[in-house]
Amino acid sequence: MSNAVKLNNVQIESVVSLIQKVQSKPEVAKTNWKASVQWKGAFQSEAKVRDFAPVKSDEPTSLGGGDSAANPVEQLLGALGNCLAVGYAANATAAGIAIKDLRIELDGDLNLHTFLGLREGGNAGYEKIRAKVHLESDAPADKIAELHKKVIGTSPVGHTLSRPVPVSIELA
Amino acid sequence: MSNAVKLNNVQIESVVSLIQKVQSKPEVAKTNWKASVQWKGAFQSEAKVRDFAPVKSDEPTSLGGGDSAANPVEQLLGALGNCLAVGYAANATAAGIAIKDLRIELDGDLNLHTFLGLREGGNAGYEKIRAKVHLESDAPADKIAELHKKVIGTSPVGHTLSRPVPVSIELA
Repeated sequence: MSNAVKLNNVQIESVVSLIQKVQSKPEVAKTNWKASVQWKGAFQSEAKVRDFAPVKSDEPTSLGGGDSAANPVEQLLGALGNCLAVGYAANATAAGIAIKDLRIELDGDLNLHTFLGLREGGNAGYEKIRAKVHLESDAPADKIAELHKKVIGTSPVGHTLSRPVPVSIELA
Repeated sequence: MSNAVKLNNVQIESVVSLIQKVQSKPEVAKTNWKASVQWKGAFQSEAKVRDFAPVKSDEPTSLGGGDSAANPVEQLLGALGNCLAVGYAANATAAGIAIKDLRIELDGDLNLHTFLGLREGGNAGYEKIRAKVHLESDAPADKIAELHKKVIGTSPVGHTLSRPVPVSIELA
């Protein structure tokens, strides 16, 4: 019987239980997330989260790196895609929509002038980020449109990127 | 002799050569970065960048996931730390500063109300992100302070997070 509620293989009971917890105790929703990064020489570093194996980072040779891993701005796009995938899986499951396949292509435009120190005070970050969502499902188009709207309105990484976030960077 | 210019193990010639290219042909600085994400069922997915092995994503059990990898908001913090590491390595090398060790601790506050659909139109993203930089170097304090200021002013991921970026998310 427990398989019947595992639409999209999602443990929806855990999410429902968390929602109930937050409803009775709103402070449960205040979360803090952490990562730590260790520099490995040159443009290589590793990001560690909880007890998971560290994930490598490097730059392409064109940017002076050793080209051994995705670079930080590519990792950012990956984080957005992964966040959207969770959003579709969670909200589709809550809406009774079965997902057959889900693939997200992301890209972003970035002008290197500021990063390279060739202009002062400019924007070193992405100017524009695009995500193309390939969602296969037998659900009717209006249900999919509703799902899509919900995912966009509730995406933690999507909102972090589209809003200005106070970022404090301090020497310890 | 080539070791002499490889301070911090950085291939500074590649960066200098890129700067020269951009100075003579500004459009070289206009870059586009890509990633693609494949949903793997439940809250699991994989982000792929160029030809590198896919990097896994999942949610903790408290959020209904299988707890098999860092989640997207943790990945975002990792991307920021990796970006800062490149920034310190590049700018320290350009300034003739040797880095003995560099470690960055990151954390961020996120309220789950919007993500869980418990409030409409709210912010699902980070409210605040902090990075603590542990930099070991024999360089004088004023040189380190200057380096730090430069890194903050030129960080692609730092700027992406601290500014509002137009993010378009569309069903293909």
